[in-house]
Amino acid sequence: MRSVAVSLFLAFSGAACAHPGHGTPERHDPAAVRTAIEGTLVQFGAAMKRTDARAIASMFTEDGEYIRVATKGFPTGRTAIQEVFAARFTAARFVDVAIATVSVQVEGDTAYETGTNRLTVQAGDAPPVTRTGRYLTVWKRQPDGVWRIRVDAIVPDPLP
Amino acid sequence: MRSVAVSLFLAFSGAACAHPGHGTPERHDPAAVRTAIEGTLVQFGAAMKRTDARAIASMFTEDGEYIRVATKGFPTGRTAIQEVFAARFTAARFVDVAIATVSVQVEGDTAYETGTNRLTVQAGDAPPVTRTGRYLTVWKRQPDGVWRIRVDAIVPDPLP
Repeated sequence: MRSVAVSLFLAFSGAACAHPGHGTPERHDPAAVRTAIEGTLVQFGAAMKRTDARAIASMFTEDGEYIRVATKGFPTGRTAIQEVFAARFTAARFVDVAIATVSVQVEGDTAYETGTNRLTVQAGDAPPVTRTGRYLTVWKRQPDGVWRIRVDAIVPDPLP
Repeated sequence: MRSVAVSLFLAFSGAACAHPGHGTPERHDPAAVRTAIEGTLVQFGAAMKRTDARAIASMFTEDGEYIRVATKGFPTGRTAIQEVFAARFTAARFVDVAIATVSVQVEGDTAYETGTNRLTVQAGDAPPVTRTGRYLTVWKRQPDGVWRIRVDAIVPDPLP
């Protein structure tokens, strides 16, 4: 049921800027692209809280990449990304997740977004810890009209 | 002399894919874009070693952003970026800088690049320390034909 809900959501969020998709890239309305991206990020945060690594992986393109401090290299593809999140969910529970878009720029079927995140995580019975960060994400509009994450680079904030 | 050399280099690296630049975005040869980007990164590394914060800032677009762990927020614009690098150069000397492109994707006048870096820094008389990382960079082709950095997000590697 969860993955059906996510698929329906993704289909809907893409429909806002659907086009025939043939020939030269079209110009997508930046406000509509931002709305689609922000909608997917709400789903991303919800999936983290319910530990749904598969739903998160489905928000990436088939060749999506995920770059973060605590994971080596450039995990690429939905299977690898799902494994990264599954491991995170085993290590700790995400009590609260807030992802906020700062800016979105669109060129053709590519968009790049900056934003901030605030994650509250709890490992076992330890007190919850809140960490903040920033990110740069490249999104690609897919043939099904959905914007998915092509590369996600997460940069922690400096320690206070 | 230094900034003249950088300007000449940037002009040359852009000339490889120069076009009239009017109307709809053209398709730039991805191999030529990658060559231009790699050439600028060689200059970026050289400027770090000679502590030339102004030259580095000139490799960003006017609205360029630089995201790294040790600096808060999203320093934006050449003046802010020059200040970030000037402060880094005051704190430590960059004994060695290696920046290596992993992949480049181009859409219109936007390109996004992933890569790795290895920095050897020395503060005062302390022993040099080598740190490695990864990055995601969004490049924009400017009206002068040069590809400049629009957003640079630097992600340190996990500690060994």
